Amino acid sequence: MLPRKIADSTVRRLAIYLRFLEEFEDQGRDTVSSEALAHRAGTTSAQVRKDLSFFGSFGKRGLGYDVHALGIRLREILGLGRRYRVLIVGAGRLAGALVQYAGFSARGFEVVAVVDRDPDKIGTAWGEIVIEGVAQLEEIVVREQVEIAILVTPADPAQGLVDRLVQAGVTAVLNFAPVQLHVPEGVDVKNVNLAVELETLSYALAHRVHA
Amino acid sequence: MLPRKIADSTVRRLAIYLRFLEEFEDQGRDTVSSEALAHRAGTTSAQVRKDLSFFGSFGKRGLGYDVHALGIRLREILGLGRRYRVLIVGAGRLAGALVQYAGFSARGFEVVAVVDRDPDKIGTAWGEIVIEGVAQLEEIVVREQVEIAILVTPADPAQGLVDRLVQAGVTAVLNFAPVQLHVPEGVDVKNVNLAVELETLSYALAHRVHA
Repeated sequence: MLPRKIADSTVRRLAIYLRFLEEFEDQGRDTVSSEALAHRAGTTSAQVRKDLSFFGSFGKRGLGYDVHALGIRLREILGLGRRYRVLIVGAGRLAGALVQYAGFSARGFEVVAVVDRDPDKIGTAWGEIVIEGVAQLEEIVVREQVEIAILVTPADPAQGLVDRLVQAGVTAVLNFAPVQLHVPEGVDVKNVNLAVELETLSYALAHRVHA
Repeated sequence: MLPRKIADSTVRRLAIYLRFLEEFEDQGRDTVSSEALAHRAGTTSAQVRKDLSFFGSFGKRGLGYDVHALGIRLREILGLGRRYRVLIVGAGRLAGALVQYAGFSARGFEVVAVVDRDPDKIGTAWGEIVIEGVAQLEEIVVREQVEIAILVTPADPAQGLVDRLVQAGVTAVLNFAPVQLHVPEGVDVKNVNLAVELETLSYALAHRVHA
């Protein structure tokens, strides 16, 4: 049995632990301490032990965690045991980088379609994927059994597009558009806002300079 | 006088408000209500009023906020009144997308140098920027008066690179490497971890499916 509700912040730490476990495994290491995981994830070893205790016992007394067993369990918890079919909405440069990003495919996120509204882009190929028109959005969601949409558009069209995606059955959205999307309950949206991240840095720099 | 310490979450909302104010200004609108800002930022109008009350009075009774005046003040608060010199570490596809991302330059973030460790990339041009070797990191930071570094590398070399950047005088880092960086006090790091965002979605999908 999996615990029903894990806080978003815990899920994030689990994803980071998993990344380290995979590195350790590649290096041929069998065990890892909670201290090492804590250091890499920027948290405390008490937090690591608490996070992992939810999911059963992986510790070997005096040796730390079993790298292989814990990795399998974390992949299972994070839902990484299977592939997810991903639609990219907006065929700009950032989308191009995402399509090529090996990390996505390695973790089971498979880009199955790309749409854009620019007639010059529609019909051109990105690797094996031919860019389709945004008018076909609903049809593509059904045809490709899309589960996750990645929105890489300007702010303005984003809400209208996410409404159409949700209507067509998509329940998970990774949003790069600089706008807070409104979705019904049961739909998950994660936001990546590069400009906002940079502005929190400029804020920090500006206030250090004036301090 | 600016308040000394604003919570990171508040700074993020200010950055989002600013984006909307700029849209409203482009549309020729003079005022905006706290309700409209709240809706776009995914928060409450009480929160908007609280956030903005820190910085003086921008409300016109019964009319809402003055779009132009509030925009100027938010740009000032966010440190966007000047340009920031940005170094990109790691010349992969994602870095390429960042260099071309118009939003960065429009908000004053100017990419002044790109470094990579791949000899095949060093010496090639990205627009007006010639990619340099990572061995020159410290020299470039000084020569280009770099203020912000964007780290777009695999996890493994990231900590070593950030140590060198900090040593050379960089105090603000936007980190795309899937690793928690350790930096001394006075250095700000913001993390953008695309794979972790996707995994929080796969977690949500997996647990909906099994529920």
